[in-house]
Amino acid sequence: MPFFNFPFTADKTVKNRALIVSVGNFYPGEDLSKRHGVKRDNQRLHEILSKLGFSVKIIMDIEADEIYEAFKAESKKTVKDCFVGVISSHGEEGVVFGADGGAVKLAEIYSYFRGPSMADKSKLFMIQACRGHGLDEGVEADSSFSEEEDGVCELFSIPIDTAVMYATSPGYGAFMHPAGSELIQTFCNLLEEEGGPDLEITRLLTRINFQVAYNFKSRGKTLGGKKQMPCFVTRFTREVFPFRKMAAEEDLSLNFAATQLIDEPKRSRKSSIS
Amino acid sequence: MPFFNFPFTADKTVKNRALIVSVGNFYPGEDLSKRHGVKRDNQRLHEILSKLGFSVKIIMDIEADEIYEAFKAESKKTVKDCFVGVISSHGEEGVVFGADGGAVKLAEIYSYFRGPSMADKSKLFMIQACRGHGLDEGVEADSSFSEEEDGVCELFSIPIDTAVMYATSPGYGAFMHPAGSELIQTFCNLLEEEGGPDLEITRLLTRINFQVAYNFKSRGKTLGGKKQMPCFVTRFTREVFPFRKMAAEEDLSLNFAATQLIDEPKRSRKSSIS
Repeated sequence: MPFFNFPFTADKTVKNRALIVSVGNFYPGEDLSKRHGVKRDNQRLHEILSKLGFSVKIIMDIEADEIYEAFKAESKKTVKDCFVGVISSHGEEGVVFGADGGAVKLAEIYSYFRGPSMADKSKLFMIQACRGHGLDEGVEADSSFSEEEDGVCELFSIPIDTAVMYATSPGYGAFMHPAGSELIQTFCNLLEEEGGPDLEITRLLTRINFQVAYNFKSRGKTLGGKKQMPCFVTRFTREVFPFRKMAAEEDLSLNFAATQLIDEPKRSRKSSIS
Repeated sequence: MPFFNFPFTADKTVKNRALIVSVGNFYPGEDLSKRHGVKRDNQRLHEILSKLGFSVKIIMDIEADEIYEAFKAESKKTVKDCFVGVISSHGEEGVVFGADGGAVKLAEIYSYFRGPSMADKSKLFMIQACRGHGLDEGVEADSSFSEEEDGVCELFSIPIDTAVMYATSPGYGAFMHPAGSELIQTFCNLLEEEGGPDLEITRLLTRINFQVAYNFKSRGKTLGGKKQMPCFVTRFTREVFPFRKMAAEEDLSLNFAATQLIDEPKRSRKSSIS
């Protein structure tokens, strides 16, 4: 068996970081509707991730090129154990739109995080986008890139030790409210629940799947059907706990994204959600 | 909070099922190379899944249309708690090839499993395909379908309570050996390990990520780089244990894909892999 390569950072001044890029207002003539709720999402993400020790940067309403630049710049810095990237905008398959209506290929964003600064760090992306074909007709992906140029499959461009959570709302309005998007608000709720930040990442994301899926079903019937729910893709090779705050901050051997390959206990346990 | 909808099947004669479709030999003139190792994969899958109580069906070297038909037929039956679908062939982004060289859209295969027979059941697909562009040049996806017709994004066609594990081998040869593919053999190894079948599904799949990623790295340098590793997509809303065999088979309340939304214990635990 191979060795365990711990994402160990001795420098205590290096923090975990989050970059939140959200587009709520598009340039006139772009035929992309204003997205209410974006500010509320940003505020809560900032508040909760900061409390959990992340250095959080928020950038709003930037153009497609600027979105690429923002993530490229972030990918060249390092983090203690974990980087969280959030993108919230209108989207199409594999792309989201900048304020100028330009398409941002998600595959390209992910691929930046293959570099040495981010090696062995946990990376989590949350994509609040992917609009349904039934709504907002007339929006097309920017035609400046072709299939040939775009050889990288989105799924397979995701680096090692990375997960991507997709809101996947074919029927966009169902998931974005003035009070914030289902995906981001559920993520924030879980991180505020007792024990939430202690959850192993795939367990946390599975709970988001559950809560968004069933919250959504209970609300609207017009866009009904089970497919309006999130999913996540993971290339994590370890079990990681990126939001866990240790009592003893100086205990670095446990403080980073704890690596555990463990036995599943066989006893059944009580639900923490009722 | 919503209720828990248990995938409960009172009929004890209904078993879990697996359908394995593998293509090792392609029609002459299709320019798709023979895939050694397919039989070994099939044999092991049959042996291990049968031991774990699955009814296993293997179909080899069929045409694209027959692959669609085989999965459509399976999706109309029910299972006790879990269906496992394995597809092993050459592939391209979003498609695999039948023995006739015809392209099979994975999105369509997944979408069959949205029907009532499979509602509330756990579905796991394993896709041993997705060849690199650097090898086997000249293979193109069947042009009989267009982007417009193919409106469903592969990722978002995955039904609720379903996970898909992709071998994602951009560099196909690296993962397929005469002794079997890295993905399938690792899956089988884990299911034969003590405690392996007891693992929660995302934990099991994360271990596959780990083992394939690092096994691969240790073997070959020519196709090096961290991106040659699996990933999985999940729309599970519960923690499920599809391979767990209960000591008391009659204890149906625990016997199905056990549903648990549980607290993460905070103590650290011993690794079971050394």
